Amino acid sequence: MDWAWAVDFGGTSVKLGLVDREGRLRAQSAFETRATPDVEAWVSRVERELRALSAAVDPAATPLGIGVGVPGFVDYGRGFIHDLTNVPGWAAVPLRDVLFHRLGIPAAVDNDANAMALAESRFGAGRGRRQVVFVTLGTGVGGGLYLDGRLYRGAHSMAGEIGHLSIDWQGAATPQGRGGLETYVGIAGLVRHAIGLLRAGRVSILTEWCEGRLEALTPKLLSEAAKEGDAVALECFNRMAAALGSALASLTYVLQPEVFVVGGGVAGAGETLFEPLRRELRERLSPHFASRVAVVPAALGADAGLVGAGALVWDLPELHKDGGES
Amino acid sequence: MDWAWAVDFGGTSVKLGLVDREGRLRAQSAFETRATPDVEAWVSRVERELRALSAAVDPAATPLGIGVGVPGFVDYGRGFIHDLTNVPGWAAVPLRDVLFHRLGIPAAVDNDANAMALAESRFGAGRGRRQVVFVTLGTGVGGGLYLDGRLYRGAHSMAGEIGHLSIDWQGAATPQGRGGLETYVGIAGLVRHAIGLLRAGRVSILTEWCEGRLEALTPKLLSEAAKEGDAVALECFNRMAAALGSALASLTYVLQPEVFVVGGGVAGAGETLFEPLRRELRERLSPHFASRVAVVPAALGADAGLVGAGALVWDLPELHKDGGES
Repeated sequence: MDWAWAVDFGGTSVKLGLVDREGRLRAQSAFETRATPDVEAWVSRVERELRALSAAVDPAATPLGIGVGVPGFVDYGRGFIHDLTNVPGWAAVPLRDVLFHRLGIPAAVDNDANAMALAESRFGAGRGRRQVVFVTLGTGVGGGLYLDGRLYRGAHSMAGEIGHLSIDWQGAATPQGRGGLETYVGIAGLVRHAIGLLRAGRVSILTEWCEGRLEALTPKLLSEAAKEGDAVALECFNRMAAALGSALASLTYVLQPEVFVVGGGVAGAGETLFEPLRRELRERLSPHFASRVAVVPAALGADAGLVGAGALVWDLPELHKDGGES
Repeated sequence: MDWAWAVDFGGTSVKLGLVDREGRLRAQSAFETRATPDVEAWVSRVERELRALSAAVDPAATPLGIGVGVPGFVDYGRGFIHDLTNVPGWAAVPLRDVLFHRLGIPAAVDNDANAMALAESRFGAGRGRRQVVFVTLGTGVGGGLYLDGRLYRGAHSMAGEIGHLSIDWQGAATPQGRGGLETYVGIAGLVRHAIGLLRAGRVSILTEWCEGRLEALTPKLLSEAAKEGDAVALECFNRMAAALGSALASLTYVLQPEVFVVGGGVAGAGETLFEPLRRELRERLSPHFASRVAVVPAALGADAGLVGAGALVWDLPELHKDGGES
């Protein structure tokens, strides 16, 4: 049995696993991100965890390589981490070379959204498609592009920043520009809009549920209120669907994917979000385009990052020198 | 000397030429589009013109293939024309097969914006780059994507419709959606905004130049007025630069091209457009992105469509079966 070592490096926890060629997780473990104060400690811990997983599954087997998804800016070509947004001490780290010298096996380092996009495209909700746009809706909005059957990373591996796509050229200015999607569609944007409606005196079950403490509002509460037919909650999701639908329409005109795969915590609202989202997308496209694109929920859940980190290894050119399918 | 037969099929004229592997036009001719009333007459005329060009340059040589750029929706994979926007009688035409059976050489059919994008990326202003976004500003706004060293066409070869990218999710509705770039940035949008300012009583040299007949306003007049420092004309170009800059910023976050190549009639305004466009793009991007992208004028002018049609041939897989560089 061939497998890759996979690491999903998050701001809170580091998840590790063995991933086979079909994207199956054979074993996994995790440790807290703050448990390893620097790069050296992190690499040692990662090596120890992965060797333990391998030994438990098949002591005689060697991993074909190691793939790592990280939360920040990466130069994929060099496997070089510019910086990680929420993890101190990780600026200018040549992680691919560090891992190769330490472990003696091929290594791939990419950002976590790309890893998730690869996993969902190849083994999840986009399986069998050649053009997939992956969108993750959480605190922020991230994305990844799977074009013509492979990850597209752009000129300096920063492509796919769908959260900064502008939906209003005259919108409020942020450090990333004006009217960026993330300001309307992320958790903060969703909750902010709901609080605005409640403060304006709109009647809603939400007032009772959060006992007047509006700062206790969450996307999950909003989603539950929407399922009960609460008008304020429904309005928040419909507005989110219109903003996101506008961005997906633009992406359809530019990239014509076969499918949008939408994941992340906010996507947990299910049809409360997907039904108006599909309608908004359809209404914002000409029939030639509207009839040829689908919007589906992500399928791999919290495993996407780990499965994708493993899949990065299978795409390494080093593994395809003798024809690949060994 | 190897060459491809190239055809740039426009709504007004059909241009023909011989294009070599380096994108040089060796000979060319043209006829009026209305001179050929149907597909059969068009194919006969095209064959006659191209054989005459070949005979004049080198009677012993055979073209390696024929490439055609057409103004409308094409399924590139099948070389099938769905319909041509401004040319009657061209719906559901399997042009690639028609040409192959008639001429006995490999044929490629793509839309004209893709042909221009390929020409500018490989031989024009994007030469040497691997990620180029081409934008053409004319009556409408068209585009083409050159990603990782080749044309990207999307799931059904309709990708690159940059003119329909939305810059205002709550903008005016059109059959293509809401707030599409083309409604702000095409010739009509530019002239409409100028007329609005003049009707509102703004003082401008344009009133005198068009002798009060505002319907006589053209992008060229506006460009000349801007060069004289006319405030109304400058405001029109600055607004256009902001709208286009917003779209290019979104495309940078999503695709991270190395360069935007901007062509078409309206781009003839030169620095009147490019200076504010570069400023707007820079201000709408975070430094990580702003410092890694350029905006340049197209270099091939009216030849881009013809050169690109020839370049389509060189990309055909049939020509690369024995290793390619023969």
